[in-house]
Amino acid sequence: MWYQKEISLKARARGFHLITNEILEHINEIKNISVGIVHIFIKHTSASLTLNENASPEVRVDLESHFNKIVPENALHYIHTLEGKDDMPAHIKSTMIGSYLTIPIKGGGLNLGTWQGIYLCEHRNYGGSRKIVITIFGE
Amino acid sequence: MWYQKEISLKARARGFHLITNEILEHINEIKNISVGIVHIFIKHTSASLTLNENASPEVRVDLESHFNKIVPENALHYIHTLEGKDDMPAHIKSTMIGSYLTIPIKGGGLNLGTWQGIYLCEHRNYGGSRKIVITIFGE
Amino acid sequence: MWYQKEISLKARARGFHLITNEILEHINEIKNISVGIVHIFIKHTSASLTLNENASPEVRVDLESHFNKIVPENALHYIHTLEGKDDMPAHIKSTMIGSYLTIPIKGGGLNLGTWQGIYLCEHRNYGGSRKIVITIFGE
Repeated sequence: MWYQKEISLKARARGFHLITNEILEHINEIKNISVGIVHIFIKHTSASLTLNENASPEVRVDLESHFNKIVPENALHYIHTLEGKDDMPAHIKSTMIGSYLTIPIKGGGLNLGTWQGIYLCEHRNYGGSRKIVITIFGE
Repeated sequence: MWYQKEISLKARARGFHLITNEILEHINEIKNISVGIVHIFIKHTSASLTLNENASPEVRVDLESHFNKIVPENALHYIHTLEGKDDMPAHIKSTMIGSYLTIPIKGGGLNLGTWQGIYLCEHRNYGGSRKIVITIFGE
Repeated sequence: MWYQKEISLKARARGFHLITNEILEHINEIKNISVGIVHIFIKHTSASLTLNENASPEVRVDLESHFNKIVPENALHYIHTLEGKDDMPAHIKSTMIGSYLTIPIKGGGLNLGTWQGIYLCEHRNYGGSRKIVITIFGE
């Protein structure tokens, strides 16, 4: 069984955001799958996807702070500066974190750990709505 | 063909650990698959999975040292500090390295490069046993 | 439907390289697939694969510069130094960026965003030709 759909995530502020529920709304089809994989793919190079702690909002704040330390704005070695001081750091963070997730499906649901949630990592100050391709496959 | 199982990796010290053989013990089913994928997923947000060099133990030591440099304990900007000084760095490393691997299957075995091995990256001082979901699919 | 092939990418200089077209030459089979996934896997631990901006060559230069800052040569804590000063940094970058990509297939083509391209990240000074396993599956 294969399903694929494209959705738009609502625009969010720069930072790390828990989007598990927004994703779950769009993948009702996994109820038909006993064993499979969900593939979640972001069609952008200045935002990324990850899994991390789904409880403490502080973890999301610290992730944003720390990636800003590792990948600062206005680094002297950047030559790609025309699209704004948040643009090149966004590209670097995108490659460090990644553009897609794969999560196992078991018994019609996501087989995540107790503390795992799906994050949108918005690296631009005004990234706007983000396009996501969700591909579900299994049996 | 689809197989999925959950295993527990034995507890390991903080650091980078070669676990290829421990994983191989649990995926005998790949012998039935001529072309496919193994998906290995860790159900935690303070440990991660990667592929890296399978020969020199020094590489694993240097990976641990370097990620500790990039993601230090006690950074002044951390606000999520209640769960121990190794907790927030563990979450950040988990997002930098990733929670899952996908490896091609060819002719009933993993189609890895000569020097590639599967690593568990244990980011907590006392992380305990770690739960892994292995999903095997192919034909 | 499952296809798997191994290809060799031509040798490239150290740095980040756009290889979308070189990959597309080898995956004509995706024309037969309406919904699926392409899995692209590099059989090495000193080079990596990512998706990033496909237009500005400056972005590739800045990625190379910035990863060299985050993962410098000659760091005093490296103990794995016998294979050259570019070797241990290459292993670390490989784990930070990753060894494989998964990209959705839609209607016989890659379902990438407008600005997304496939990158080979060559972390060695003289990495030579790089072996890639491409696995295509879908319906």
